[in-house]
Amino acid sequence: VGHFLGKNRLSIGEVVQSVNSPDRELVRVQDLTPEKADQLIWLRARVHTSRAKGKQCFLVLRQQQFNVQALVAVGDRASKQMVKFAANITKESIVDVEATVRKVEQKIESCSQQDVELHVERIFVISQAEPRLPLQLEDAVRPDGEGEEVRMNGTTTSQAVFRLQSGVCQLFRDTLTKKGFVEIQTPKIISAASEGGANVFTVSYFKTSAFLAQSPQLYKQMCICADFDKVFCVGPVFRAEDSNTHRHLTEFVGLDIEMAFNYHYHEVIDSITDTMVQIFKGLRDNFQTEIQTVNKQFPSEPFKFLEPTLRLEYTEAVAMLREAGLLTLTPLFFFFPSPQYDTDFYVLDKYPLAVRPFYTMPDPSNPKYSNSYDMFMRGEEILSGAQRVHDAQLLTERAIHHQIDLEKIKAYIDSFRYGAPPHGGGGIGLERVCMLYLGLHNVRQTSMFPRDPKRLTP
Amino acid sequence: VGHFLGKNRLSIGEVVQSVNSPDRELVRVQDLTPEKADQLIWLRARVHTSRAKGKQCFLVLRQQQFNVQALVAVGDRASKQMVKFAANITKESIVDVEATVRKVEQKIESCSQQDVELHVERIFVISQAEPRLPLQLEDAVRPDGEGEEVRMNGTTTSQAVFRLQSGVCQLFRDTLTKKGFVEIQTPKIISAASEGGANVFTVSYFKTSAFLAQSPQLYKQMCICADFDKVFCVGPVFRAEDSNTHRHLTEFVGLDIEMAFNYHYHEVIDSITDTMVQIFKGLRDNFQTEIQTVNKQFPSEPFKFLEPTLRLEYTEAVAMLREAGLLTLTPLFFFFPSPQYDTDFYVLDKYPLAVRPFYTMPDPSNPKYSNSYDMFMRGEEILSGAQRVHDAQLLTERAIHHQIDLEKIKAYIDSFRYGAPPHGGGGIGLERVCMLYLGLHNVRQTSMFPRDPKRLTP
Repeated sequence: VGHFLGKNRLSIGEVVQSVNSPDRELVRVQDLTPEKADQLIWLRARVHTSRAKGKQCFLVLRQQQFNVQALVAVGDRASKQMVKFAANITKESIVDVEATVRKVEQKIESCSQQDVELHVERIFVISQAEPRLPLQLEDAVRPDGEGEEVRMNGTTTSQAVFRLQSGVCQLFRDTLTKKGFVEIQTPKIISAASEGGANVFTVSYFKTSAFLAQSPQLYKQMCICADFDKVFCVGPVFRAEDSNTHRHLTEFVGLDIEMAFNYHYHEVIDSITDTMVQIFKGLRDNFQTEIQTVNKQFPSEPFKFLEPTLRLEYTEAVAMLREAGLLTLTPLFFFFPSPQYDTDFYVLDKYPLAVRPFYTMPDPSNPKYSNSYDMFMRGEEILSGAQRVHDAQLLTERAIHHQIDLEKIKAYIDSFRYGAPPHGGGGIGLERVCMLYLGLHNVRQTSMFPRDPKRLTP
Repeated sequence: VGHFLGKNRLSIGEVVQSVNSPDRELVRVQDLTPEKADQLIWLRARVHTSRAKGKQCFLVLRQQQFNVQALVAVGDRASKQMVKFAANITKESIVDVEATVRKVEQKIESCSQQDVELHVERIFVISQAEPRLPLQLEDAVRPDGEGEEVRMNGTTTSQAVFRLQSGVCQLFRDTLTKKGFVEIQTPKIISAASEGGANVFTVSYFKTSAFLAQSPQLYKQMCICADFDKVFCVGPVFRAEDSNTHRHLTEFVGLDIEMAFNYHYHEVIDSITDTMVQIFKGLRDNFQTEIQTVNKQFPSEPFKFLEPTLRLEYTEAVAMLREAGLLTLTPLFFFFPSPQYDTDFYVLDKYPLAVRPFYTMPDPSNPKYSNSYDMFMRGEEILSGAQRVHDAQLLTERAIHHQIDLEKIKAYIDSFRYGAPPHGGGGIGLERVCMLYLGLHNVRQTSMFPRDPKRLTP
């Protein structure tokens, strides 16, 4: 229920149910600058804090990452009752205020709008918050808030993280569209497990069962075979892996690319690395406010990248690690190149054939290796990709070598029997890109509603 | 395996396995114009048709929706063997040709490039198609191809439909981004059925079970409660409905919108209709080639729309239908307004409260109706939306009225207890928008990999 309080009047309003539209402009908090001094304005915002002191009540009113101080004081415009009413509005309630903008002599350090305050004449409660909040906002913005249970929604940090995430998607799509890629929509419910059958969720599908797609791989490739030439898709991918780590989710957003190339799969690597570089530049140039906001709570170094992107071969990386006494993992999911390279983004090329899926093209010059690559940000893998085998006969041989039941992948192999251009691609994890770009340490911080083996809500 | 044929030479090549990159530019078919006359060029394309005639072989080479005639003739540059080799290349194989561009005296009516042909000097097979194709392309482009089993992939019509679909997504996002909306990613695996529990797919989730989201409704609303102000999302939604009609899919792409408004939910209707109008204008102005291509196979009238969009009340629509003797359906899923309105896009406002979900805001002036609306294209519903109840107490009352188990929706109701701005939105079906814009008659024609109760492949 809404409450209305005018000068010397107190009445009870209604839930905004679209009865009528007053001819009234609502000003944004971020637009409250000294240019607006002495203007009478209307504003809708949340009560961030409230502090009563004798005949005065100081409110901080918040809109997303912006806030402003508002003063309700007994005098010409406001009654004693009104000050008391304002002091009793619960934190996080949404209010409409009519107020005069006043310049202040001393900057208000605690607010984003430091040069002005509001002298309130009227105040309505549009939506009243319950007195006890489920999570104190002060707790959510503590710098140690990295644990499993800390969710950032509603805080300014959270606003910034997810605005930046929306920027990553936009930059990804805009860059690829400019390069001639077409966006496609691929199905998530599929009849056969796409990558061998492990780690796949099962769905009841009418009288039969189906699976949730672990990647759009097959569908991207079918589009290439159907002459779409260059395609991308953005959508959920599902992994039924019981991995409870800082970097695994059971549902995440895949940014997927597939393209025909002319002569060499390095054309694909170049397209993908250039796309990443355009994303990094776009974030650096257009999302500084968001980056700074996140850094205040979670300090990190600015993200560094090179042009062209550093590309090392897998065997070089192994040699570097051996030399540094750090060689523990094969294949490499974590890797930092020697510091002299001075970059947070790099590619490892030519992984051993044995550790890649059966549809990976072998290296023509050394059959123990493959035309495959991973990409890394701040030491962690964010993309896995390869040239794919586009010849049905070679694909059959590779599947037999991997002891895959040919019957189950018949449709996949058949799609290459009617002319298929050489092609390659890769899949990028959106949440990992955002986490690593911002120097965060848990992928749950960059997933708005994370899903893991132990979490299905909200 | 690839085949190479030079002047008087014949040899066997290899699968393109990224051995090396020749320093060779590949020209696009669409760029073969008289300005290129007498140039020696390289081209990669599919063999669309092939016709041998004595000492000559005519090929039509295709790239997406473009094609060009190519002549291999015994003479200075080509041997008898080469003509025979060219004549034997299977249709749909991908070839590289080196050829001279020649102007022709009489237009080649059967090709997109009508003013030039190619005189071939060398030809390689990059990927050989099997002699028998699974579907004859000539069949796929027949104008009666509307049945369940006709898939359009690989045809020029299909290319055009899905390029236009990618345009709809881009225009939707770009328009909303300009209006200050933020893109969000919502989970598809959820712990409780979002809209009551009917028509929902069940997923095995480790030791428990979960559901596939029927809409991002709850998540969009949580973002509004977390002060994101205006959000949109593009992603799959799942409906376990056994509806085998021309307009139902079990998995489709939802274009979803939710926004806080100031005073009246018509602010939301205006935002959505303007977004649709921007999409229609963008398609009309930038996708004429695609529209014409589809129209060749499936003729239809150009899509008509008005500015501002026509908005009628539900009761007016019912009266119109009653007058025309056509009143059969309540609620209205199909509706054509009187022809004098001359528009293919319109809104019906103020649906009866009883036929809408429990979270729909009642109409303050008549409690039998609600602040809800559907939008239509060429007579069929493409969007359903409403002002949502943002007050926990009213929401509880409405849920009780609908006999919904309050325990199951506790988290949903609780999300409105901590201050919630008035808000509304809606969800649009991407495949329906594309079908109706293009005047097609089956939603399977605008879904690349359609899913229905009887179809789970490919």
